[in-house]
Amino acid sequence: RIDGKRLWDSLMAMAEIGATPKGGVKRLTLSDVDKKGRDTFKGWCEALGLTVRVDAIGNMFARREGRDPKRLPVLLGSHLDSQPTGGKFDGALGVIAGLEVMRTLHDLNIVTEAPIELINWTDEEGSRFGHSLMGSGTWAGIYTLDKTYGLKDVDGVSVSEALDQIGYKGPNPAKPFPADAYFELHIEQGPILEKEGKQIGVVTGAQAQVWYDAVITGQDSHAGTTPPSARKDALVAAAKVITLVDDLMRARGEDGRGTVGFLQIAAPSRNVVPGEVRFSVEFRHPDDAQIQGLAKTFPEQAKALVEATGCKLDLTELFVIPAQPFDPACVDLVRQAAKRLGFSSREIISGAGHDAVYVARSVPTAMIFTPCKDGLSHNEAESILPEEAEAGCQVLFEAVVARANR
Amino acid sequence: RIDGKRLWDSLMAMAEIGATPKGGVKRLTLSDVDKKGRDTFKGWCEALGLTVRVDAIGNMFARREGRDPKRLPVLLGSHLDSQPTGGKFDGALGVIAGLEVMRTLHDLNIVTEAPIELINWTDEEGSRFGHSLMGSGTWAGIYTLDKTYGLKDVDGVSVSEALDQIGYKGPNPAKPFPADAYFELHIEQGPILEKEGKQIGVVTGAQAQVWYDAVITGQDSHAGTTPPSARKDALVAAAKVITLVDDLMRARGEDGRGTVGFLQIAAPSRNVVPGEVRFSVEFRHPDDAQIQGLAKTFPEQAKALVEATGCKLDLTELFVIPAQPFDPACVDLVRQAAKRLGFSSREIISGAGHDAVYVARSVPTAMIFTPCKDGLSHNEAESILPEEAEAGCQVLFEAVVARANR
Ligand SMILES: NC(=O)NCCC(=O)O
Ligand SMILES: NC(=O)NCCC(=O)O
Repeated sequence: RIDGKRLWDSLMAMAEIGATPKGGVKRLTLSDVDKKGRDTFKGWCEALGLTVRVDAIGNMFARREGRDPKRLPVLLGSHLDSQPTGGKFDGALGVIAGLEVMRTLHDLNIVTEAPIELINWTDEEGSRFGHSLMGSGTWAGIYTLDKTYGLKDVDGVSVSEALDQIGYKGPNPAKPFPADAYFELHIEQGPILEKEGKQIGVVTGAQAQVWYDAVITGQDSHAGTTPPSARKDALVAAAKVITLVDDLMRARGEDGRGTVGFLQIAAPSRNVVPGEVRFSVEFRHPDDAQIQGLAKTFPEQAKALVEATGCKLDLTELFVIPAQPFDPACVDLVRQAAKRLGFSSREIISGAGHDAVYVARSVPTAMIFTPCKDGLSHNEAESILPEEAEAGCQVLFEAVVARANR
Repeated sequence: RIDGKRLWDSLMAMAEIGATPKGGVKRLTLSDVDKKGRDTFKGWCEALGLTVRVDAIGNMFARREGRDPKRLPVLLGSHLDSQPTGGKFDGALGVIAGLEVMRTLHDLNIVTEAPIELINWTDEEGSRFGHSLMGSGTWAGIYTLDKTYGLKDVDGVSVSEALDQIGYKGPNPAKPFPADAYFELHIEQGPILEKEGKQIGVVTGAQAQVWYDAVITGQDSHAGTTPPSARKDALVAAAKVITLVDDLMRARGEDGRGTVGFLQIAAPSRNVVPGEVRFSVEFRHPDDAQIQGLAKTFPEQAKALVEATGCKLDLTELFVIPAQPFDPACVDLVRQAAKRLGFSSREIISGAGHDAVYVARSVPTAMIFTPCKDGLSHNEAESILPEEAEAGCQVLFEAVVARANR
């Protein structure tokens, strides 16, 4: 069995890196803090005798050899980057639990048939460079390396520069290699498991999503002298789009998601009618058809609202991620492990995007969810219990070892 | 007659200080750039033999003695601070034209009966510390010095610290002294004079205004997993308030003004439902009763909208400026000067706030407007013609000298 206390202690040690005053974590991808998290993780892996390689987009792979040189590796992992005001567990749980799996194998002197590789994916959150699942998406070939390298943060720093700055632009190519399976443990980040009192979520797939960048251009002018008829107020136009996004979400019931999470006035000043506003838009739904429908109708609806205010809308679709079902055999390994261990469980669709979604395109994949307090995530107050982490890690251990020894 | 070319050259020299790539000016109050503008202005004044004193809030007074020691000074001036993306003339025209009046008196060896004092008011724009007309408002006793010193910019720098940093916390008390009159030349910042082809606006008063600070608190949560019913989206709530402000403005017709010019999400991230948003609100109207009505009803209406989204609104009224009529005798001096010089003119109410509004509470006051291109101000493209500046300056000269020699 895995060591629940060691797992928790390592989670807490990782949470120190980028700890925020309100009890959360700020470990933005490819920042100096992220480098510290990566270095610590690397040290922990190497202490177990694992070999750590880094690919061109900074994804880290810690390999434990198996007995049979012909067997493809079983992969597991998640991400160590966080939101600007994120929690201790979003991402870190999957990586540190993977480490605990490795430590347990090491302690018990178990050599699995297949090799096992523990992965820390680069920039899962997407908060800094605008593309969630960036590292796994580049690895999976969804984005070319050139495109990803060129993405910039709000300060104009590119992914390529940021990788160089922290020394994590590795020599290995960022592309899929033959692998037998991928397992990812993650907190649910939603309220379902907690509400139903289930210990384990058997994740059968992830919902569809579409993300946009929007720029509204109006005209800066004086708030005191510019009459209503002469205004081109980019913020008033943005407010109408924000309301539209919320309305479109609510029209789809409890399965709908629609969010403007980022917004910036170009030259904010109290007595200036805003002339330029930039913001993000994203929609999600378990049903692909809903997202395809929104991707068709939303741009036109938003444009009409913005133009009615005298402003101009420039909307860029950043990406569409179709709904992604996971591999039935891998999902069943998770289901069986939970049952064997006596944990209550239920099937669940992931509301969040995960690296598993892109890995699933080339490698049989499954995910394990554990509950989190009040379903809260992307919030410094994100919280789980040690026994919840332990249960998830134990299921991960069983599923990975079962697959590696099949 | 004043020297139109010298006036224009000095305006352009001042516009170099804080010049922006798009042809505007960024000379934020009490910044290093503002210090450079102040130092330059001081040098120009002292070259004419004027004595420059500075008061506790950084207002600068350049005095030219008159013949009669018993006469009260005639004041003129405006401000050298600008918006973050401001124009070359908003404020600077009144100060540099005042300097040109002094230079002309000097060249012609004219000694007026009354002394004349040229003023550069601190922080007219209000963009950095949230209170427009800050220097003149403190001088006029609208705000206590302690209150003003404690105001902070978004980086937490207080007015007191900023004054110390640039060395403009002067020894003179910031309070009204006996004065005979105050004249301020300013660009209209609106479209009326240009549309009607008038060279001079005879300003009879300024409209009423009310300013607010707003904070909406909801809950940061995951954009992919948080269902509509569980969201407390502070940005969606803010969007409803922004729309309300625009609606309330439009319900008052072409005289209405309502603006949200500043807005910031506390922790912006594309896939986070925003948990905290801060923004500004202001309303203006020539009719006091309209502003009093809004100050009564808007807070309740905004609160209801915000609470319907599950969020909380914290609204602080920063100040109310009542409509301010100017002094009929001073206004008439402007009217007569324009007529005598053969300039076309019309009476006009100021849409913008001006230092003249607070000075008018203790000193007989008038203002002179000149047209600006497309009525555009608080915009880097703000533009006027040299002959428009010259006409305004000539009217200012005549009105000031007539008053000083009466
Ligand atoms: N798991 C998670 O929070 N992923 C971030 C990407 C997203 O779903 O927005
Ligand atoms: N003249 C001018 O732009 N004043 C700024 C203060 C305001 O009216 O908002």
